[in-house]
Amino acid sequence: MRVVAFGGGHGLSVTLRALRGIQQERSLDITAVVTVADDGGSSGRLRATRDILPPGDLRQALAALADETAMAELFQHRFAGVDDIAGHPVGNLVLCALMELAQDPVSALDRAAAMLRCHGRVLPMSRQSLHIEADLSEGGEVVTVRGQHEVAISTKTIDRVRLTPAAPEACAEAVRATLRADWLLFGPGSWFTSVIPHLLVPALADAIRESAAKRLVTLNLAADSETAGLTLPEHLAALRRYLPGLQVDVVLADGKAVGDPEPVHRAAESLGARLVLAPVAVVDGSPQHDPQALAAALEPLIRKELENREVTTEWR
Amino acid sequence: MRVVAFGGGHGLSVTLRALRGIQQERSLDITAVVTVADDGGSSGRLRATRDILPPGDLRQALAALADETAMAELFQHRFAGVDDIAGHPVGNLVLCALMELAQDPVSALDRAAAMLRCHGRVLPMSRQSLHIEADLSEGGEVVTVRGQHEVAISTKTIDRVRLTPAAPEACAEAVRATLRADWLLFGPGSWFTSVIPHLLVPALADAIRESAAKRLVTLNLAADSETAGLTLPEHLAALRRYLPGLQVDVVLADGKAVGDPEPVHRAAESLGARLVLAPVAVVDGSPQHDPQALAAALEPLIRKELENREVTTEWR
Repeated sequence: MRVVAFGGGHGLSVTLRALRGIQQERSLDITAVVTVADDGGSSGRLRATRDILPPGDLRQALAALADETAMAELFQHRFAGVDDIAGHPVGNLVLCALMELAQDPVSALDRAAAMLRCHGRVLPMSRQSLHIEADLSEGGEVVTVRGQHEVAISTKTIDRVRLTPAAPEACAEAVRATLRADWLLFGPGSWFTSVIPHLLVPALADAIRESAAKRLVTLNLAADSETAGLTLPEHLAALRRYLPGLQVDVVLADGKAVGDPEPVHRAAESLGARLVLAPVAVVDGSPQHDPQALAAALEPLIRKELENREVTTEWR
Repeated sequence: MRVVAFGGGHGLSVTLRALRGIQQERSLDITAVVTVADDGGSSGRLRATRDILPPGDLRQALAALADETAMAELFQHRFAGVDDIAGHPVGNLVLCALMELAQDPVSALDRAAAMLRCHGRVLPMSRQSLHIEADLSEGGEVVTVRGQHEVAISTKTIDRVRLTPAAPEACAEAVRATLRADWLLFGPGSWFTSVIPHLLVPALADAIRESAAKRLVTLNLAADSETAGLTLPEHLAALRRYLPGLQVDVVLADGKAVGDPEPVHRAAESLGARLVLAPVAVVDGSPQHDPQALAAALEPLIRKELENREVTTEWR
């Protein structure tokens, strides 16, 4: 079964770790499609001076899928201190070098995946480095903020996010994986800077809409800066706002985070989806998904779909 | 057959590439023992701020022994440009991270060797970062120059080189490999900053003297800054000056570089060695050893010794 997960940093990692957990029991073909607009921290420093994709979110996805745990530990090792390499995770530097050597980010990522013995493939949503900008409103005034990092830390209401350059070319391999998938997974993650950007890449948005795959959205457990004030139904509405016509099959949420399920249920229904509530947060109560709990929630949803398909095939 | 090669940067790499060439035909157990006093370039920048061994020469030795050529290419990729990572080879950064993670340089080097699928082991001559200083004389005046890089680029006559701290502890694994070896190889390389430093580590010097191994010295093809004015016989005399009682079995030199062989022959004899002349330089005439030519010269010398031993064993 082919699963494509869309996202950016931490949220995508959790989804990928959950999928790896499921994979140990079932044969999953996992593809991660990653945003390439990060301009903060180590990625921001590297992309500012080098002709590469920002490596941080790509590194996180690779580490999440890695079977070679010592190599993943190396990739995730962030240099401490205050010297010129301080703050860079080793994997960012290795990805940077691989992109310089391979002259193609997808080849570079495939080489990195081989080094890490990844269960699956990590692809950028575009071969082109992008930026995110957003129109923010506060008290009737609208200001435009530029840069993914600035958008992510803003606490004003986001009216609209855009990619610059607008309408970038999609990574062809990501489009192909999307069209061939059985499941497309969105979220959890920073809604405007990690989840929605994929919908702003025209060919990828088309593939997401046209694919015969089932679509599943995992909702966040709590608001972050960029979604402060945004309700969970509004999270779902935002998806269709940026991708008109989007149909979803399953919305997965944590019952505790949802509270009264009725508004979320109605929002899910308006996308064509049923709402599934499951305990997917870490047990200490912090608003983070637990990969094992998420795997336990995702596995029967994905399996059920597989069984339905098998039955359908028999009846034909 | 166990071969230990002592050296620093480029010269040691050539020897290791030659040994790898021989190994494809015969079973060689190769150990490189590497100086750890480099303070120039990327290594100098990294050791100045981090509690690690200078990685550059260790990286070169690993790359020379690597079977995973794509990984070796990655290790040797030096970041261009002018940003904060410019000038660092990727392998230096990876070794730096592995030393920080493993908390032991030998464990870190063994992990790196596994990543690169090295034919052999790379060890530091000491687990402790060292410095080189030298007394230089010009016109009767003696000045002390501190730092391997400064010593290496000096064109004054070197009276004496020292390690600081003096008499450092040897890497135990390097001592063991030296005592168990069939062959110990010295040179080519920067004589005072790559070849002689091993003789200034007391326990390693003792092991070199006491080992039952045969000893072979490969002479340089041309003088560099630090050996300007030093004749080839003086190169050989310097070895015994720093390690009194040193016995050598074979001195290998290029006939063209030697010119009149008589003085070199006498200097070799005074160490107990026979002089073997062979064309070991690259064909374009530049003063660099060619790994294949060096392999062709070394292979019969090493094999002859092996055959002699086998015969000796029969006769006992």
